[in-house]
Amino acid sequence: MDLDALLHDVQAGTMSIAAAKAQLKAAPYLDLGYAKLDTHRGLRTGMAEVVFCQGKADEHLVAIFEHLLNTEGAILGTRCSKEQAELIKSHITSHKLYYNPISHIISTKNPEDKSEGQGLICVVTAGTADIKVAEEAAQVCEFFGNKVERIYDAGVAGLHRLLSHVETIQAANCTIAVAGMEGALASVIGGLVGNPVIAVPTSVGYGANFHGLSALLTMLNSCSNGVATVNIDNGFGAAFIASQINRLACQAK
Amino acid sequence: MDLDALLHDVQAGTMSIAAAKAQLKAAPYLDLGYAKLDTHRGLRTGMAEVVFCQGKADEHLVAIFEHLLNTEGAILGTRCSKEQAELIKSHITSHKLYYNPISHIISTKNPEDKSEGQGLICVVTAGTADIKVAEEAAQVCEFFGNKVERIYDAGVAGLHRLLSHVETIQAANCTIAVAGMEGALASVIGGLVGNPVIAVPTSVGYGANFHGLSALLTMLNSCSNGVATVNIDNGFGAAFIASQINRLACQAK
Amino acid sequence: MDLDALLHDVQAGTMSIAAAKAQLKAAPYLDLGYAKLDTHRGLRTGMAEVVFCQGKADEHLVAIFEHLLNTEGAILGTRCSKEQAELIKSHITSHKLYYNPISHIISTKNPEDKSEGQGLICVVTAGTADIKVAEEAAQVCEFFGNKVERIYDAGVAGLHRLLSHVETIQAANCTIAVAGMEGALASVIGGLVGNPVIAVPTSVGYGANFHGLSALLTMLNSCSNGVATVNIDNGFGAAFIASQINRLACQAK
Amino acid sequence: MDLDALLHDVQAGTMSIAAAKAQLKAAPYLDLGYAKLDTHRGLRTGMAEVVFCQGKADEHLVAIFEHLLNTEGAILGTRCSKEQAELIKSHITSHKLYYNPISHIISTKNPEDKSEGQGLICVVTAGTADIKVAEEAAQVCEFFGNKVERIYDAGVAGLHRLLSHVETIQAANCTIAVAGMEGALASVIGGLVGNPVIAVPTSVGYGANFHGLSALLTMLNSCSNGVATVNIDNGFGAAFIASQINRLACQAK
Amino acid sequence: MDLDALLHDVQAGTMSIAAAKAQLKAAPYLDLGYAKLDTHRGLRTGMAEVVFCQGKADEHLVAIFEHLLNTEGAILGTRCSKEQAELIKSHITSHKLYYNPISHIISTKNPEDKSEGQGLICVVTAGTADIKVAEEAAQVCEFFGNKVERIYDAGVAGLHRLLSHVETIQAANCTIAVAGMEGALASVIGGLVGNPVIAVPTSVGYGANFHGLSALLTMLNSCSNGVATVNIDNGFGAAFIASQINRLACQAK
Amino acid sequence: MDLDALLHDVQAGTMSIAAAKAQLKAAPYLDLGYAKLDTHRGLRTGMAEVVFCQGKADEHLVAIFEHLLNTEGAILGTRCSKEQAELIKSHITSHKLYYNPISHIISTKNPEDKSEGQGLICVVTAGTADIKVAEEAAQVCEFFGNKVERIYDAGVAGLHRLLSHVETIQAANCTIAVAGMEGALASVIGGLVGNPVIAVPTSVGYGANFHGLSALLTMLNSCSNGVATVNIDNGFGAAFIASQINRLACQAK
Amino acid sequence: MDLDALLHDVQAGTMSIAAAKAQLKAAPYLDLGYAKLDTHRGLRTGMAEVVFCQGKADEHLVAIFEHLLNTEGAILGTRCSKEQAELIKSHITSHKLYYNPISHIISTKNPEDKSEGQGLICVVTAGTADIKVAEEAAQVCEFFGNKVERIYDAGVAGLHRLLSHVETIQAANCTIAVAGMEGALASVIGGLVGNPVIAVPTSVGYGANFHGLSALLTMLNSCSNGVATVNIDNGFGAAFIASQINRLACQAK
Amino acid sequence: MDLDALLHDVQAGTMSIAAAKAQLKAAPYLDLGYAKLDTHRGLRTGMAEVVFCQGKADEHLVAIFEHLLNTEGAILGTRCSKEQAELIKSHITSHKLYYNPISHIISTKNPEDKSEGQGLICVVTAGTADIKVAEEAAQVCEFFGNKVERIYDAGVAGLHRLLSHVETIQAANCTIAVAGMEGALASVIGGLVGNPVIAVPTSVGYGANFHGLSALLTMLNSCSNGVATVNIDNGFGAAFIASQINRLACQAK
Repeated sequence: MDLDALLHDVQAGTMSIAAAKAQLKAAPYLDLGYAKLDTHRGLRTGMAEVVFCQGKADEHLVAIFEHLLNTEGAILGTRCSKEQAELIKSHITSHKLYYNPISHIISTKNPEDKSEGQGLICVVTAGTADIKVAEEAAQVCEFFGNKVERIYDAGVAGLHRLLSHVETIQAANCTIAVAGMEGALASVIGGLVGNPVIAVPTSVGYGANFHGLSALLTMLNSCSNGVATVNIDNGFGAAFIASQINRLACQAK
Repeated sequence: MDLDALLHDVQAGTMSIAAAKAQLKAAPYLDLGYAKLDTHRGLRTGMAEVVFCQGKADEHLVAIFEHLLNTEGAILGTRCSKEQAELIKSHITSHKLYYNPISHIISTKNPEDKSEGQGLICVVTAGTADIKVAEEAAQVCEFFGNKVERIYDAGVAGLHRLLSHVETIQAANCTIAVAGMEGALASVIGGLVGNPVIAVPTSVGYGANFHGLSALLTMLNSCSNGVATVNIDNGFGAAFIASQINRLACQAK
Repeated sequence: MDLDALLHDVQAGTMSIAAAKAQLKAAPYLDLGYAKLDTHRGLRTGMAEVVFCQGKADEHLVAIFEHLLNTEGAILGTRCSKEQAELIKSHITSHKLYYNPISHIISTKNPEDKSEGQGLICVVTAGTADIKVAEEAAQVCEFFGNKVERIYDAGVAGLHRLLSHVETIQAANCTIAVAGMEGALASVIGGLVGNPVIAVPTSVGYGANFHGLSALLTMLNSCSNGVATVNIDNGFGAAFIASQINRLACQAK
Repeated sequence: MDLDALLHDVQAGTMSIAAAKAQLKAAPYLDLGYAKLDTHRGLRTGMAEVVFCQGKADEHLVAIFEHLLNTEGAILGTRCSKEQAELIKSHITSHKLYYNPISHIISTKNPEDKSEGQGLICVVTAGTADIKVAEEAAQVCEFFGNKVERIYDAGVAGLHRLLSHVETIQAANCTIAVAGMEGALASVIGGLVGNPVIAVPTSVGYGANFHGLSALLTMLNSCSNGVATVNIDNGFGAAFIASQINRLACQAK
Repeated sequence: MDLDALLHDVQAGTMSIAAAKAQLKAAPYLDLGYAKLDTHRGLRTGMAEVVFCQGKADEHLVAIFEHLLNTEGAILGTRCSKEQAELIKSHITSHKLYYNPISHIISTKNPEDKSEGQGLICVVTAGTADIKVAEEAAQVCEFFGNKVERIYDAGVAGLHRLLSHVETIQAANCTIAVAGMEGALASVIGGLVGNPVIAVPTSVGYGANFHGLSALLTMLNSCSNGVATVNIDNGFGAAFIASQINRLACQAK
Repeated sequence: MDLDALLHDVQAGTMSIAAAKAQLKAAPYLDLGYAKLDTHRGLRTGMAEVVFCQGKADEHLVAIFEHLLNTEGAILGTRCSKEQAELIKSHITSHKLYYNPISHIISTKNPEDKSEGQGLICVVTAGTADIKVAEEAAQVCEFFGNKVERIYDAGVAGLHRLLSHVETIQAANCTIAVAGMEGALASVIGGLVGNPVIAVPTSVGYGANFHGLSALLTMLNSCSNGVATVNIDNGFGAAFIASQINRLACQAK
Repeated sequence: MDLDALLHDVQAGTMSIAAAKAQLKAAPYLDLGYAKLDTHRGLRTGMAEVVFCQGKADEHLVAIFEHLLNTEGAILGTRCSKEQAELIKSHITSHKLYYNPISHIISTKNPEDKSEGQGLICVVTAGTADIKVAEEAAQVCEFFGNKVERIYDAGVAGLHRLLSHVETIQAANCTIAVAGMEGALASVIGGLVGNPVIAVPTSVGYGANFHGLSALLTMLNSCSNGVATVNIDNGFGAAFIASQINRLACQAK
Repeated sequence: MDLDALLHDVQAGTMSIAAAKAQLKAAPYLDLGYAKLDTHRGLRTGMAEVVFCQGKADEHLVAIFEHLLNTEGAILGTRCSKEQAELIKSHITSHKLYYNPISHIISTKNPEDKSEGQGLICVVTAGTADIKVAEEAAQVCEFFGNKVERIYDAGVAGLHRLLSHVETIQAANCTIAVAGMEGALASVIGGLVGNPVIAVPTSVGYGANFHGLSALLTMLNSCSNGVATVNIDNGFGAAFIASQINRLACQAK
């Protein structure tokens, strides 16, 4: 909304007071009753709204996909169950949708289509069981147009597996470190690189991992600099901020 | 260490095997016995080692300052008590040191000397009691050469105080959101801007804030995108990663 | 029980000591053995007993509904599963019962019958997944005769969605703020309005939300005034106290 | 701000666009740099800003008192230490200030001056050690113009002490139940009265009370209806919402 | 083992050293390999071993029942699933076994056979959902020969339901107070009676009850005297110590 | 209060209705304003009110001692600091008061006067640092007229120290097991004796003892039967219920 | 890698610089993309990599077994479900694999084949329900070539069951103490023996055991010396370090 | 005690039954009333009793030192404050005692006297602030006759500092890894060596380290094998079990 223009229009009499009031109060979202789709988010933050599928009622989910596809053209849904993916695909015929059962992402982007993204984000995991979360992160990064390098199963129990990839990690604008159990991976990477590390604790483990609390506390207390943390298992959240960082790095000021 | 050069030298016979072995094993740090100063960190991560003063024995603290000043020329110490600051100043005569009693930072940089930094980092606090942590963040950012804008006491209890600064915050490459109590500030800022938000929970509050746990959980569970979190009261940690992000934004690739 | 009358009757000899003792000790409840229905609660607190269905044995549940319908005429059961609802309906033929699968409420009140209630209570949610809890709150408010305004999916990630409804919220005698994840909604509303806000944390979220603990702590530590909190997912509890507040506001003293 | 009037003025040409823009963006607060005093809060919420003294720097504290006294005429500060009270009194000569060492409140209102307030709020404590928190609640209620009845040391270990005051409690528009240790007081009162109960857990106790967590959980899980909870030791918060409720009850709609 | 007799026998030569050593080291239990049945516990503590069925392998469970029935004649198993009860019954033909689906107890004692026990233990519950735990307690007490009085659904939300039974509770040698949610029942009873109260927190409730933690902390922090607490949902444990207390009260010294 | 007598008096006209009403409502406590001394507790529970000194204001503490000494003749105060003890002694001249700096008990009973009590209560500690809590328990037991046997520093790290006292412990009507760190003492004693064990976790230890949580959980989860637990460091609470148990054992029914 | 030899080869010109660089950076693991098998772990730590089956995708699991069997010849997988065991067996025909449904171990070693191992490790459990974890420990110890003695169901509730095996336990080079509920077993054993005790808390129990937290804290706070703890239910972890200790004891230095 | 010999003596008549009974019941400890010194611990576990000084009353502490010095000749006290050390030294003149203010150890062993110990234990710290705990560990190891190698300030933030000492660590029979903050050191060392690692979490750090909980959970959840953990800040406990392991390694079987 252009405040200057609006006020000029009012001053000039080309806009009525009622119309001006309406615009000043206009909500930049699409109100479906049960949901208020934030269609101006793309303008405000530079990245479109992403649908968190988990827990949404079937009719709401389908309707949200339809509305956003109409207004945005592209879409990405996270934490989408196989059943939800089939439901959505059976209702949406206007666009081709791809579902990845490891990342639980449904999207208009073909995950196999590895067209060159910009910059570089490294996604590293400590173990094989962390891949589910890591793929959510990696595929979201790719959806937002970033180039991604995956380095999986490189935890500190066998440090040489990580050290042999140090140069790749150092070349990235941002690294996403995904680890469960004791979560030491983020600290080790933080000590090796000079660019930001976004740490994702996972709930992988058992017993005193307390569903990811152990890895979360490890990452928050990292003795390495340049590490910030997102919620347990929140691959999407890490990807979002990593994409912001990589975008900044790719744009000269 | 230039591995190619070293191996060429060995091949050429200009470096003995013993010398090569020594270099290959050489520790790139200064071993004081009780501390191993990581003097190559500047090379590795682009930012020099910072001294965490709290809990260090007096003689260790003074010696570490002396060694780092000799090798680096500049220094910054965090969580430095008034007593420690006086001790250090009484021993170090080679350099002028400045101590700020609010941020508890001692440094070779005059905090009053507001020479123009690069880019822009916004430091926002929810309340007045969060300023201590915020100043640690702001002064570290300035030490590392970033331009900083401070917006203090702009918490969500009076939302208009924050909304009137939205344009400034949106202009920053990175925002540091510092808040105690319920810590909602980070989510609100995250919803308003398109660049990364580094959230710093503080221990400000009482009762069920559990010494910062409340704000920490709020920030980790932010419903806004683009928010990552550091440890409770860790202004330094936020400043470090924000500096990395701002540096990336200021350097065209 | 009229103590004066009783003692006069004893003095006058029109009531025996045994009868007086019996009345003085009489329990104002209906004892079913496995349950003591508090039939005087309506007199004592102004609102009849509501049945918490979850965990009750089938025969107990049916019998409690029968007894309360006989003594009260109207009934409301919360946390009623679909199976329990069908069981109750198959046994109760004397009254028409309505079951709402979103709120899990069974009641003699038709939720579609939006007859005008008194005063105004606003029920606001942060996200779509919070609607289940919000509907429990809203329908309980309506059962107790309050007018309710619903504003759903207005969380702080897109603040403009909330700000466009400020006038409605300010007009309410009491607002029920329902939010999971980081639960910042209650603080933001608390800063915008002058009447009480009852905050309901929900278990919506994952990871470090710890099943609602995150939102609960946020709400308890609200930096805004005029906010009090009920148990996680306790829509009924919020509705009960909001109804008390709205009733007070509608009755001149 | 009267939006209609402003736009009419612009339309009529009696207000310049620049002036209109300034007003539309004007922050309704007094910016002291280190604090943004929310001077419009009285308009927005009906109750003026209260100063939380704890943790504020001396010069900030004095300046905030001076500014608010200038703009508001009356003031109330909570969690004010004896040293802070003396400091403030030594700087403020324009107004008479009263300090109460039990409630730690400093205010322009003489706590001994028991002029008749409106309505009725009951403040009940379980034990003698809870009085400190209860007095904060009671004196804040009185500052905001409410009539207050105190019933102290009436915990459930000797139930007859509470039962002998039931009629007083039932007459109140709102009851503030203050209890530490196991905090059962709120549930018992909630079962006896028909108006809202605001529960304040206190940190009184030791061991497995975990600094008030025990009483907090008790109150959140109350089996009685009509109970909502504020933070541990938060007498002010309880008083604020109780004042809102009592004000609603005293104003016919 | 009679140490005097043994040593006399060795001195007299009527017992070999080997035999004496064997006796001195003999383990007073029946070793099944996977279990060491403590058959001397009856002698040592006055009450026979009770079988905790949950989690035991089928063949182990049946064999333990067979061995104990052979050596003890009577048996009681707690936390026995319906499937386990059917399995045991199908294998044990030497004794009649009774299974109660509410208490999950299997036993040689007919729970319907209410032969007169000694003394008096009161079992009180706050709500209907606590009956499962209370019946485990009550039936164990009856198995050990105690007279039991049940008072169910007498929680503090309707205090008159409890107060009408005070005389019965005061007559008991020990009261078992069973409550979930906020667990205030134990404190209220503790304030009313002069004999010991054994408090059993239950996991009944939701949200911030944290699976019984809320009631547990309430009971541990009881402001009433004469209250001691057992594990969450541990009806058996409460019954055991209550039986010990009632036995002491029934035996003159 | 004799209800029969009162009603007869009303019937007979020897008591007015007003007088009867007054008695029926009379609160059996002494109201000091800031405290309601429960002077009928002795009648109700068989043991007089004990003063919890910690946290009480000086003038309140002295007044409570004066009032209770007047009405009860004997007194016992727990958690009394050295300063409080001196204050009380300087004001109370009517009675001789004894202060024990280890147990922090002040009382009219000379702790050195070991007159024979009834029955037997054993107080056992795991270590020397637990003696403070154990002495609170032991001296309270003695104040209430019980015979006490102390067995200190008999923890499970050197099991033979405990086993050599088994016969003494088995002879007691009740054992109080006082232990910090891992708190295993209660389980071991529970397995050796047939009478009730009251377990007192202490805050002795460091690190992952979490101020007594470790010992508390150990005791609540005891695999031995006949163990019930009181709050951390609550020697008084254990003594109270142990005294009730011992009294029951000493009185034939 | 022989650094001397490599450098000599470079010096002598028999190895190119490129080849030397490759070797210096070579990763001693087998990279399957989704997993980096640490095939040099045997060389580095003396024990081969063990497969943690839980949570691995079917195709990954089979492939890892195939690769490790090819390179190592022997294999051991832990936390292997019955379904996973059948899957693996149906794909692997080159080697005979054994599956134990109690320990959930799949291995090339026949658990029935009790060939004599070296040294002695004792595995002791408190109860029957702890056997599952204990068998994981015992079978892993046997896989690594240690002699194992099992002593099951010897918890502190019947101390004589443990004491009758003291000599066996004292003879072991290391004891693994496996216990849930209150976990006191480790402390008792620690006080009886002079060699290391590795404590394994289990999640056996209910209520305030908090899924093993109770036993974990007990073991960490052991008042006995010579006790170190592994994660809840981590029989494998205990077996690994016990095997290291027993190996050290069997090898003269 | 030689059971065979005793019984033979009884059989032979050379020992009376009374004497035999006395010996069979004799407690192998020195009973001081307030403490039972476990003087046979040396025989039972191979290492003498160590005095935990913290929290002991002055007269108890001095007496315990005197008694143990008399019976053992050597002594070591941990967690000894400077005041306690001076007190002990002023009373003990029979032996020379050394006090180290960093480790807080008082002992008959001169810490400067680095006589050659047996085997090798490595003590590694992550940071300088962990040295206090590490020195407790190292000096206890030396007191028990082990050779110790110290490697301090080698945390994962600068991995090269640790990697340059790998050979030394690999040569040790046992490594003690001491780390606060995120505690990743233990996992990294565990992945590099083949002998046991005893992990000591420290309380070094702030905020979400929760006084050592963060490092504790990290170490318990280590993805590396061969790691077992002791209590937070428990340098002594780690030294004790490390000494047992090193002793086993030094003694051929």
